[in-house]
Amino acid sequence: MERKSFQSDGLNDKPREACGVFGIYGPGLDVSRITYYGLYALQHRGQESAGIAVSDGCKIRCQRGMGLVSEVFHEEDLEKLTGHLAVGHVRYSTSGESSIENAQPLVFHSRQGMIALAHNGNLTNYKELRRKLAEEGVVFQTDSDSELFVCILARSSNGNLIEGILKTMDEVRGAYSLIIMTEKQLYGIRDPFGVRPLCLGRVDGGYVLASESCALDTIGAQFIRDLDPGEVVVIDDNGITAFKQLSPSRRALCIFEFVYFARPDSVIDGLNVQKARLSLGRELAREYPLDADLVIPVPDSGTSAALAYASVRGIPFCEGLIKNRYVGRTFIKPDQAMRDLGVRLKLNPVREVLEGKKVVMIDDSIVRGTTSRKIVQMIRDAGAKEVHLLVSSPPILYPCYYGIDTSRRGELIAATHDLSEIKEMIGADSLNYLSLDGLFAAMAPLAPQDFCVACFNGLYPIEVPFCQKERVDS
Amino acid sequence: MERKSFQSDGLNDKPREACGVFGIYGPGLDVSRITYYGLYALQHRGQESAGIAVSDGCKIRCQRGMGLVSEVFHEEDLEKLTGHLAVGHVRYSTSGESSIENAQPLVFHSRQGMIALAHNGNLTNYKELRRKLAEEGVVFQTDSDSELFVCILARSSNGNLIEGILKTMDEVRGAYSLIIMTEKQLYGIRDPFGVRPLCLGRVDGGYVLASESCALDTIGAQFIRDLDPGEVVVIDDNGITAFKQLSPSRRALCIFEFVYFARPDSVIDGLNVQKARLSLGRELAREYPLDADLVIPVPDSGTSAALAYASVRGIPFCEGLIKNRYVGRTFIKPDQAMRDLGVRLKLNPVREVLEGKKVVMIDDSIVRGTTSRKIVQMIRDAGAKEVHLLVSSPPILYPCYYGIDTSRRGELIAATHDLSEIKEMIGADSLNYLSLDGLFAAMAPLAPQDFCVACFNGLYPIEVPFCQKERVDS
Amino acid sequence: MERKSFQSDGLNDKPREACGVFGIYGPGLDVSRITYYGLYALQHRGQESAGIAVSDGCKIRCQRGMGLVSEVFHEEDLEKLTGHLAVGHVRYSTSGESSIENAQPLVFHSRQGMIALAHNGNLTNYKELRRKLAEEGVVFQTDSDSELFVCILARSSNGNLIEGILKTMDEVRGAYSLIIMTEKQLYGIRDPFGVRPLCLGRVDGGYVLASESCALDTIGAQFIRDLDPGEVVVIDDNGITAFKQLSPSRRALCIFEFVYFARPDSVIDGLNVQKARLSLGRELAREYPLDADLVIPVPDSGTSAALAYASVRGIPFCEGLIKNRYVGRTFIKPDQAMRDLGVRLKLNPVREVLEGKKVVMIDDSIVRGTTSRKIVQMIRDAGAKEVHLLVSSPPILYPCYYGIDTSRRGELIAATHDLSEIKEMIGADSLNYLSLDGLFAAMAPLAPQDFCVACFNGLYPIEVPFCQKERVDS
Amino acid sequence: MERKSFQSDGLNDKPREACGVFGIYGPGLDVSRITYYGLYALQHRGQESAGIAVSDGCKIRCQRGMGLVSEVFHEEDLEKLTGHLAVGHVRYSTSGESSIENAQPLVFHSRQGMIALAHNGNLTNYKELRRKLAEEGVVFQTDSDSELFVCILARSSNGNLIEGILKTMDEVRGAYSLIIMTEKQLYGIRDPFGVRPLCLGRVDGGYVLASESCALDTIGAQFIRDLDPGEVVVIDDNGITAFKQLSPSRRALCIFEFVYFARPDSVIDGLNVQKARLSLGRELAREYPLDADLVIPVPDSGTSAALAYASVRGIPFCEGLIKNRYVGRTFIKPDQAMRDLGVRLKLNPVREVLEGKKVVMIDDSIVRGTTSRKIVQMIRDAGAKEVHLLVSSPPILYPCYYGIDTSRRGELIAATHDLSEIKEMIGADSLNYLSLDGLFAAMAPLAPQDFCVACFNGLYPIEVPFCQKERVDS
Repeated sequence: MERKSFQSDGLNDKPREACGVFGIYGPGLDVSRITYYGLYALQHRGQESAGIAVSDGCKIRCQRGMGLVSEVFHEEDLEKLTGHLAVGHVRYSTSGESSIENAQPLVFHSRQGMIALAHNGNLTNYKELRRKLAEEGVVFQTDSDSELFVCILARSSNGNLIEGILKTMDEVRGAYSLIIMTEKQLYGIRDPFGVRPLCLGRVDGGYVLASESCALDTIGAQFIRDLDPGEVVVIDDNGITAFKQLSPSRRALCIFEFVYFARPDSVIDGLNVQKARLSLGRELAREYPLDADLVIPVPDSGTSAALAYASVRGIPFCEGLIKNRYVGRTFIKPDQAMRDLGVRLKLNPVREVLEGKKVVMIDDSIVRGTTSRKIVQMIRDAGAKEVHLLVSSPPILYPCYYGIDTSRRGELIAATHDLSEIKEMIGADSLNYLSLDGLFAAMAPLAPQDFCVACFNGLYPIEVPFCQKERVDS
Repeated sequence: MERKSFQSDGLNDKPREACGVFGIYGPGLDVSRITYYGLYALQHRGQESAGIAVSDGCKIRCQRGMGLVSEVFHEEDLEKLTGHLAVGHVRYSTSGESSIENAQPLVFHSRQGMIALAHNGNLTNYKELRRKLAEEGVVFQTDSDSELFVCILARSSNGNLIEGILKTMDEVRGAYSLIIMTEKQLYGIRDPFGVRPLCLGRVDGGYVLASESCALDTIGAQFIRDLDPGEVVVIDDNGITAFKQLSPSRRALCIFEFVYFARPDSVIDGLNVQKARLSLGRELAREYPLDADLVIPVPDSGTSAALAYASVRGIPFCEGLIKNRYVGRTFIKPDQAMRDLGVRLKLNPVREVLEGKKVVMIDDSIVRGTTSRKIVQMIRDAGAKEVHLLVSSPPILYPCYYGIDTSRRGELIAATHDLSEIKEMIGADSLNYLSLDGLFAAMAPLAPQDFCVACFNGLYPIEVPFCQKERVDS
Repeated sequence: MERKSFQSDGLNDKPREACGVFGIYGPGLDVSRITYYGLYALQHRGQESAGIAVSDGCKIRCQRGMGLVSEVFHEEDLEKLTGHLAVGHVRYSTSGESSIENAQPLVFHSRQGMIALAHNGNLTNYKELRRKLAEEGVVFQTDSDSELFVCILARSSNGNLIEGILKTMDEVRGAYSLIIMTEKQLYGIRDPFGVRPLCLGRVDGGYVLASESCALDTIGAQFIRDLDPGEVVVIDDNGITAFKQLSPSRRALCIFEFVYFARPDSVIDGLNVQKARLSLGRELAREYPLDADLVIPVPDSGTSAALAYASVRGIPFCEGLIKNRYVGRTFIKPDQAMRDLGVRLKLNPVREVLEGKKVVMIDDSIVRGTTSRKIVQMIRDAGAKEVHLLVSSPPILYPCYYGIDTSRRGELIAATHDLSEIKEMIGADSLNYLSLDGLFAAMAPLAPQDFCVACFNGLYPIEVPFCQKERVDS
Repeated sequence: MERKSFQSDGLNDKPREACGVFGIYGPGLDVSRITYYGLYALQHRGQESAGIAVSDGCKIRCQRGMGLVSEVFHEEDLEKLTGHLAVGHVRYSTSGESSIENAQPLVFHSRQGMIALAHNGNLTNYKELRRKLAEEGVVFQTDSDSELFVCILARSSNGNLIEGILKTMDEVRGAYSLIIMTEKQLYGIRDPFGVRPLCLGRVDGGYVLASESCALDTIGAQFIRDLDPGEVVVIDDNGITAFKQLSPSRRALCIFEFVYFARPDSVIDGLNVQKARLSLGRELAREYPLDADLVIPVPDSGTSAALAYASVRGIPFCEGLIKNRYVGRTFIKPDQAMRDLGVRLKLNPVREVLEGKKVVMIDDSIVRGTTSRKIVQMIRDAGAKEVHLLVSSPPILYPCYYGIDTSRRGELIAATHDLSEIKEMIGADSLNYLSLDGLFAAMAPLAPQDFCVACFNGLYPIEVPFCQKERVDS
């Protein structure tokens, strides 16, 4: 389950990725430990909860908990999770919904035996499907869309699970990269539009599935390939077998994976994330060739674009903002009296390099704009003469119907204000966003039609139920 | 107490800073909460344990625990720690000695009432003093040198604590930045050589003391000044009163604060850390003007030097190694079978930017060299054609008698091997260290004689007891 | 869910009761806190896990955890569980199956909204029902029979939950005292045979349901009545409404509630537990009028019978064995080297009162006999001249098909050995069990036909599926 | 350290014993595990905190924590505590002072090496000694009297620890049963009056020390003898060596050990606790030969006396009050709204046995009387016709200067009210206390002069500093 949110918590004003998934089929390997390290490499995709389910061929054992992978699992936990196939999950912390019930992998008992499921994505026809099942007397253990996939799957499959999965994929709509584990098999599933990444690798006689290739690198696995949109792979004693839906849709990979979500060292559908971000900086330089004394990034995701921008423009680059990297799950937020501290707890400007300078600051995206305003002010307070803000992606104008709470469109600063208003609100001397064309150009060799950019242009590749859409637009 | 160690744990081959201290005297302020945020800003100086002691004028309450500040303290803890003056401490994780007994602040009951103490540094005549006291029948609650200061203080002061502190400073030798809190007063103390930093700031009618100025910035305090070597400040209802030892020694600020320990946004004794690190890169470029396709840092502390080097040399800079930032206190280390994973869990190269390139890699220091070897190999495996390693500080040839376990000199790669041997061991195509002169040049306007560089040249500014010294050299 | 087990763990050789349930409908009352105290009063029925689900009319919140009620819930937990109706559950610790997944109340999302369920008992046609549902594509979150009730209920009810409950009761077989909570209503359900107790009370304008009347006493509620076998009560804004199945079965209250399970101060179906136990002692005295110097109980459940026996026989009664009451959930069991300590950790004889005495020792039941052997030996070691063991219930000859793991019949000492053999194995000078007639006599005014005594005579009141039965007898 | 308190917390109105101590010298034995079980047997003497210190001959390791022995220690903890001698401690929970700092054993570093200390008792000249030491510049880690013993010991001993101990015993006044462990030796010390018990046993080639003999029984050790008042035993490789102070004082064993504190199966200074309690009941029967329908105890400590009373008087005995045994450390106390629940959470009357009866209820002691009032009311509410309260010890008229907070004399109901007033306040039909002569008679063969009964007659065997005394009487 994914809750991609363009919300802000005062300390963070970024879209929220929800999950990372990892799976391994590895006879003879310490699969729980490998999954631990695999999840650790995907930790940036979710810090709220972590879970690992392991099967020894007969029985699935699962442990889930709140917090980082390293907080949830200790040596003795891994020792108890014995088996030769495993699936793991990390989930993002979204305020207010943080509870152990939402942690994954989910585990079910079905007529085929036990099933574990890890999900990255969001189903769009969730409510409709759930209503239908509930009317037939199905009860659910969670309020999530992830559970739905298994419920439909259990009804669709009649001995043949792969058939059931393909049938289920015909019924559900939306974004999903899934890893499903039965007692004996591991399944990797990528939705027909390939909205979320999912790749396949090889390790010491076994196979792994992961949201991003950086997880393969971390555990020493070799990258084989990304799953195709609409593809299902089954891994078991017979090796890998791949299945495809008959009518593949167009691709619609979430472009935000490159802009913000994924780790720079990952390669998704053939494109390295850091290379894409460097290109974003070059495109920015082409579109907005500003003169300045200094280029600084908003760390960490703005760094590559800022480096490339500075290089093209021949302007010195410097880390003008220092980020405190120790914010943990249980970090105590400032109370009302200390609200002023705000972003200062996370970011501190280096007065010595900013003082008296005309600064170009590069960020990857702006959601509400509240954090940007504070950062700009902080840079000025540190003595910068001018602050020009460049954003390495276009204005976010539309909600993400594939995960974001749709009531929140009013909170998107660019959806309700024009450029000059935003500039005023943020307090920058100038503000410019990369164009959609510039964004696409930076994604080469991937083609524009390979991406979902609905949040920028409102063209939703996957049908959104009317009932949901309306609620948003009103 | 400080245990500055040049040891390595396989994932980290850096000198180990031991502690950060923070104190506040702030009637009307939420001092426990401010101390929490102050320690949070100093978290890079110690992640093993954290503690806060608060006084309400009558009684000192203290809470300490293992882990990050955010792990040790929760909302309800801060609510219980009520008062108007506080002292806090973070301590580094050194393998094997990690226990709650060593957490600070230490709290004592004395004839003057309760006393809390937070210590950054290390006493050199610790054993001698301890033996003397023990012979007089003193018992100790810890095995640490920090406790000693209070024991001597309690014997030296006769109603007048400041007199006792000055007397104690005459007896103890070594490095110490101390914050001492009685029920009613806050004391800041910096040793006569000023080995460790300690600065003073003002906030909303109160005063703060902190290891680094970044803590003042974070809580919104104004920097007043660094404490002078040998200075004691008393903060209470009468404001600040400063005392100085009669015969000030020469200064001997640990130069590693600039090379590695301190946060880039801090200013220590007038010099901004990031500016110093940029200068290190420029000095490196002057001494070793290599040609290459790419300059990459070993993140994070090598970044500034690498940026400056690349800029001077006109070579593209890129983040060629991506660091996983989620290693927590309880992270499970790879077992024997997965030892190969090694640094890969923490660092992953970006093949797409390294492939086919002649790479200059910049690191801030090398202790054992084991990690460097793995990183160089990793860069090569990712396709780099050549790897030239530049180190932004001179070879570490001598143990730090002010904190490091002296038996470890044999582990310092540069103490036992010459440059070409180290190059071979590390596997780099070339290896060069910044010269001591270059290091000093980068510290301008601070003068060479302001620093302790004993680890580089063996000239120890503070007398080291013979007994200790011998053990090392043998 | 109940796992009534006649198993032994070396420290305890008693049948295992599995659960206690508690519910309250109390507008204006602090229902989570009252449930906490209610469960606390029922703690003897289960110490493995505890849980409370609360509804505020709109949403059900639930917290469950391992351990005692006082370990699972803290002040802040209760404060979060706000509402006006609640259901709680305590579960027994059975070795090896102790996991949070099995903790109750279970909470489900259904078409009627959220449903919470707390179950004491065991369904006999569990496998058959589960297989049927699974074949229809139902997936389950647990491996328990309790979940099954809700699954069938969700399919059976079409808007009218009470109708669905009655239909579900027609489908399921076995022992169940259930409390079901929807967002707005509380349901109490007792199976058609009334195997497990369930009673109703009134408190400050609200109503409560509880496994035993001692829970009503503890929270200051007035006992109204026991639920009839096959009865369903609905509690909501309209007060209490009662429903009955059309064809009530014969009663079959588990007689072990009086022999061992229930708290002495409880009244079940009109009979006070302590009075019943005193009668057991009098019946024993009638059947086995031994002469001795001393009567001692095996604490705690043998005490009442021993007191009555001693009184009738005119023999001094004394607590000859002192029980350590602090064995907690996480108590470390003796390892192999200390196995001898055995029961001594829990029971210690008082040599001063036993020395040289001919002792009658009274226990309530014997399952495997291993503990009895150790106790007899301990009494002898403490100087007793003779040890005559009287058991206040008949020999356990048959497994309990309503909950016990059926493979265990071989472990029932009385199922595989005759009286003299058991006496030898236990090492007593004499051994006698109360007759079934004596047991019945002690239950007056309840009639023999009101009870299930299948474990004594093999006459199972509720049909046991052949497949299960056979497995046992083979 | 002991805080014997006659205070009440609403749920418990008993004097508070503070500690249990246990030590073992056992080469080849698993001493940490044996200490665990030994402390477990002494758990009734203290449930607030537990600790175990173990030495392997070179180094002392210690673990302490809040809660029961079984809560503080887990398997992996014991595995880390390796060695061949150990000392353990359990401490009572007294509201408000519950903190980890007060947990024992205390561990110190001294010139002789490490020292661990476990203390049961209270020093009377604590303040005077502490002031003296503080003036000499000693700092303390706790606010307790226990630490003082070690501080004086460290100054008194000059290589010869036993000499130092004897000197220290000359300086300190008060009640103390102490176990001190150095890296190589175990010391058992009982104060010159023998106020607190301490006994010696033998186990598998090793020796044990324990507060009560029940701990020896539990771990399978053989009782050797009680330590004499003023005796010190040293246990090491040479076996046991005993030392005595030159001028032994009179004995003054706290009589409350027999009345309430100790476990019934323990034998203290030759007298079995349960036998003593039975004698108390017989003495009560002699002094107050009431006629009644029923004798009931206030569980658990009133049980033996009630049994004996009923037996002598020929009146049926019954457990009329059922005690809930699951109150844990973190049990949530009823808030204001539920204050009525009061003792009902802990005790529930059995209406069926009380109804219409004239009841004699036997309790061991009354401190404030608040709980007694509630219990009497509860018995009446349950239908008893008359309630006659007999107390198996005399009225508590004087504070215990050897541990109780001296400001509390005003709270002792018998210190401020006469018998008829107390009877009225408690609401009993009659109230009678055992006479001091009766109490002494029950202690045979121990003589009256062997006991401290200061709380009954104000004759303090150990000098109480005037300053303390006055504060109390005022």
